[in-house]
Amino acid sequence: MPLTPEQQAEIDQQRATPRQTLRAVSEGMEKHLYTAHPVLDHGFVRAIDYMGDDSAIVQAARVSYGAGTKHVQNDEGLIRYLMRHWHSTPFEMCEVKLHVKLPVFVARQWIRHRTANVNEYSARYSILDREFYIPEPAQLAAQSSVNNQGRGAVLHGEEAARVLALLKSDAAQMYDHYEDMLSQDGQQGLARELARMNLPMNIYTQWYWKTDLHNLFHFLRLRADDHAQFEIRVYAEAIAAMVADWVPLAYAAFDDYRMGGATLSSKAIDALKRMLKGEDVTRETSGMSAGEWREFMGVIADPA
Amino acid sequence: MPLTPEQQAEIDQQRATPRQTLRAVSEGMEKHLYTAHPVLDHGFVRAIDYMGDDSAIVQAARVSYGAGTKHVQNDEGLIRYLMRHWHSTPFEMCEVKLHVKLPVFVARQWIRHRTANVNEYSARYSILDREFYIPEPAQLAAQSSVNNQGRGAVLHGEEAARVLALLKSDAAQMYDHYEDMLSQDGQQGLARELARMNLPMNIYTQWYWKTDLHNLFHFLRLRADDHAQFEIRVYAEAIAAMVADWVPLAYAAFDDYRMGGATLSSKAIDALKRMLKGEDVTRETSGMSAGEWREFMGVIADPA
Amino acid sequence: MPLTPEQQAEIDQQRATPRQTLRAVSEGMEKHLYTAHPVLDHGFVRAIDYMGDDSAIVQAARVSYGAGTKHVQNDEGLIRYLMRHWHSTPFEMCEVKLHVKLPVFVARQWIRHRTANVNEYSARYSILDREFYIPEPAQLAAQSSVNNQGRGAVLHGEEAARVLALLKSDAAQMYDHYEDMLSQDGQQGLARELARMNLPMNIYTQWYWKTDLHNLFHFLRLRADDHAQFEIRVYAEAIAAMVADWVPLAYAAFDDYRMGGATLSSKAIDALKRMLKGEDVTRETSGMSAGEWREFMGVIADPA
Amino acid sequence: MPLTPEQQAEIDQQRATPRQTLRAVSEGMEKHLYTAHPVLDHGFVRAIDYMGDDSAIVQAARVSYGAGTKHVQNDEGLIRYLMRHWHSTPFEMCEVKLHVKLPVFVARQWIRHRTANVNEYSARYSILDREFYIPEPAQLAAQSSVNNQGRGAVLHGEEAARVLALLKSDAAQMYDHYEDMLSQDGQQGLARELARMNLPMNIYTQWYWKTDLHNLFHFLRLRADDHAQFEIRVYAEAIAAMVADWVPLAYAAFDDYRMGGATLSSKAIDALKRMLKGEDVTRETSGMSAGEWREFMGVIADPA
Repeated sequence: MPLTPEQQAEIDQQRATPRQTLRAVSEGMEKHLYTAHPVLDHGFVRAIDYMGDDSAIVQAARVSYGAGTKHVQNDEGLIRYLMRHWHSTPFEMCEVKLHVKLPVFVARQWIRHRTANVNEYSARYSILDREFYIPEPAQLAAQSSVNNQGRGAVLHGEEAARVLALLKSDAAQMYDHYEDMLSQDGQQGLARELARMNLPMNIYTQWYWKTDLHNLFHFLRLRADDHAQFEIRVYAEAIAAMVADWVPLAYAAFDDYRMGGATLSSKAIDALKRMLKGEDVTRETSGMSAGEWREFMGVIADPA
Repeated sequence: MPLTPEQQAEIDQQRATPRQTLRAVSEGMEKHLYTAHPVLDHGFVRAIDYMGDDSAIVQAARVSYGAGTKHVQNDEGLIRYLMRHWHSTPFEMCEVKLHVKLPVFVARQWIRHRTANVNEYSARYSILDREFYIPEPAQLAAQSSVNNQGRGAVLHGEEAARVLALLKSDAAQMYDHYEDMLSQDGQQGLARELARMNLPMNIYTQWYWKTDLHNLFHFLRLRADDHAQFEIRVYAEAIAAMVADWVPLAYAAFDDYRMGGATLSSKAIDALKRMLKGEDVTRETSGMSAGEWREFMGVIADPA
Repeated sequence: MPLTPEQQAEIDQQRATPRQTLRAVSEGMEKHLYTAHPVLDHGFVRAIDYMGDDSAIVQAARVSYGAGTKHVQNDEGLIRYLMRHWHSTPFEMCEVKLHVKLPVFVARQWIRHRTANVNEYSARYSILDREFYIPEPAQLAAQSSVNNQGRGAVLHGEEAARVLALLKSDAAQMYDHYEDMLSQDGQQGLARELARMNLPMNIYTQWYWKTDLHNLFHFLRLRADDHAQFEIRVYAEAIAAMVADWVPLAYAAFDDYRMGGATLSSKAIDALKRMLKGEDVTRETSGMSAGEWREFMGVIADPA
Repeated sequence: MPLTPEQQAEIDQQRATPRQTLRAVSEGMEKHLYTAHPVLDHGFVRAIDYMGDDSAIVQAARVSYGAGTKHVQNDEGLIRYLMRHWHSTPFEMCEVKLHVKLPVFVARQWIRHRTANVNEYSARYSILDREFYIPEPAQLAAQSSVNNQGRGAVLHGEEAARVLALLKSDAAQMYDHYEDMLSQDGQQGLARELARMNLPMNIYTQWYWKTDLHNLFHFLRLRADDHAQFEIRVYAEAIAAMVADWVPLAYAAFDDYRMGGATLSSKAIDALKRMLKGEDVTRETSGMSAGEWREFMGVIADPA
């Protein structure tokens, strides 16, 4: 459980005091506000604030004086049109602010999405907590033999036990040393900005992260994808579940056109046209490389 | 009056229906929401939405679980500290969305502030209204003789009358021709995306513009400044008045450190130190150019 | 011809004085440097500077100590892989700086691409030249009856003549008035920052525009597309021709995966799979809207 | 010495083969190209590419057809004017690409500067080297007792020896375990993307980092400042030394107005005016807080 009783009390207090506003309100997002959705062993994602809803997207696209269109069906059609034609600016008119607790090595991937605002807990200024990410046994996978940046089979038995034991004992030892360095007898201890460098990258950090819906969709497309590392994918999935409640029409369009969609090259489109006319196209006659062909097959092949 | 009765009715409806939210609420900003504050002869600025308040800045700076500090005084001290030390990220945690109606030549300056989200009314898709900015006589200034990008004395009498007459008759004529081109007898008329090119740049356009508080402060510092062109400065001033109600502590810090502050070069600081020791420093002994010295004098000279 | 003899002389001089450098050099781009490629009636695009070449993309992707891979074929394969998998950061390692002369209404579309650096010729500071975009007769199209932001049939005969006459006489008159306002007898004339507002949006402006290759590809995908307005598309095409010479491998990958490619929704992929199994899928059984179906047919239908 | 003979050979080869270009060339930067300037115990900064020079700033500010002004003195005056008046866009017209080797905890601070392009060496894909930052004894400082995010006195004797021993033995042990986990007998070993999480944050990583001169100046102002952590400041200083050779006029203006300059609040300016009139202003009569007053004194006090 990642929260202390004091933290939970602060959250409860914020959830207990609704106020009046004239702004657009998303009931779906209100129910998530402040609540910490657990991710990994000590992490969480919680929504701190949001701006806009599905109607706000329509309203901005029309530069209108009032709210969105009169009919939900019209809003949906327009939102799908905007998504299909890469009109990204109306989606930028929604904004969300999240409080995330996550291991440092995940934070290092996450921060590469630059179009966002970030305030991270400072280990120059404050002392980090003794919390490290230790994978579930099911996540202790071997290096993939086909994909240089992926995972292969899950480790078993002694191998897995040995890795887990190392991760746990190293984390404990490093944190002990961190504390030792910070509090030396008879003096003030090593500066925090130095002591932190001895901590391993599975220690947890926290940040406030704020971005607009367009850039959030871009983040989700890359990080909720199968090729993303498991440890960031679970954060993306937790966020996606909230977004589906926040802006259901926009999320459905995103899911159809981006998450469930695929981009085909001109070679792939050419192959498709020939296939649809009954031709038996092979990789050799398609002009594609082995990698392109495999990915193309992955799009059009029926898993059944 | 820039609004039609239908537009005003839409605004009134939005202001009449408060809803409950768990989000941070700024009472100062709620009173502005949707209301169109007039700017120039046909323009306006109105707040459509906002995220965060003074406490949200503190909350983000501390990556906290609850709201800001317990005491307003502490919030104020921290906000001033953040502003003084250029810690910009906590201010980025507030966001505002505005609906602005403005002349095209003002929009062309405004859009140069890139860190913002924009949806502009499309003259490819829609027909623009017959509304042009015609300056007040007091704004009809001659080219400055000392500043290549500034204004000098106000025009008088016949000169002013002649300019005003030209602006008015040209605007009327160009809009007549715009209408003519759009609606030609017996056919559909020239494409809107072409016809618009004949319109002068004092025609009004509209957009939704959304930005965070840090970038908004940067906009205000440059555009509410004396050196900014009058026609964009009045927009900046109208926005500044809303921001002062929205985040009063942050705005006061901005006003003290940025709007009312000044940046001195190392040469200027050196001159100051010598002056404080009683030395009679001149431009020649300061090492500054004529322009630098004039601006330095502008900072330290008492207007009285 | 958009250049004065003096301007041409400056360009000739820059092209006449090669210097030595240790940087990556693209022979394909060197041949374009400084030369003004004409666009529209008075506009141009000319490359002022560039950073990087195809090898620089590979070098950055590998964070290598030397140049790219040893073999061009390997570079090509890696570049295609990066493009296919949306690894955008290596493409950001190339940069280009252009000098563009373009009508103001085109500049207003262009500037919406925010991830770029821009210095525009200042009409606050300087006086604009008497140069206006007057379309070729073949470009005088009627408003499309099926697409609210497109063009339909070309205007003919008297209609076309009337539009052309209006555009020409209005441009001449407005520029005459601009000059009148700037130079009034016995005084300094209206401030330039005010006089410019009376100019129509087909007047030409100029800017220096600098962006990285990833963002340039995004610009080209949207602006060299059939749906883009003709007047900006011709600029995009002129730039694309230079990029094809500058980074031929990256451009070929872009052309295959982005310009010639297509994004399919999950509904479209589902329909495709059924079609490939021999099913006769119709719009009704596909679950797509009329617009989606039409666009889907546009992707897979053989134009022959 | 951070480079292997093979790496040094690649660098030597690149430096041995000058080519011809028509682009602007900065002789000052050419001499740095590819050379690795050592920073900390295993890190370096080396320039991979650059775009533009001092003249390019002037050329962009004037949107000119040729190079900068005819006279260096004019270029200098304009560059100083642009810097003084926060005209940032001409400085954005210069760009630099660096290859940096740096400890992870430094990289985590650095990456917060978002307006830059980055390709980092991937520890998902590749195996990191056994290289850790171990501070010089002179850098082993205690936590500051007055500044929560600063350093105090240097540790001495046994205390320092104990910290150093811990850092060294922990780094060695963690890297041993990293290798153990990657290469387990009879199987492929733990996935690299997982094994890396057990490494401490003083391990070295590498990246290509590209940014424009305006944003680089912003980086240098914050990171070459006394308040920056020593371990990032030394990188900023190494970069600053190269920039001074690359664009000497722009760097001199930056040094005078930004690095050596100071921003005063309206309260501070008011106090100054009173002081210059001979009044004996105290903190109490200035209206400043203790922190503001201390910093104000730091600006105007003579260290002698």
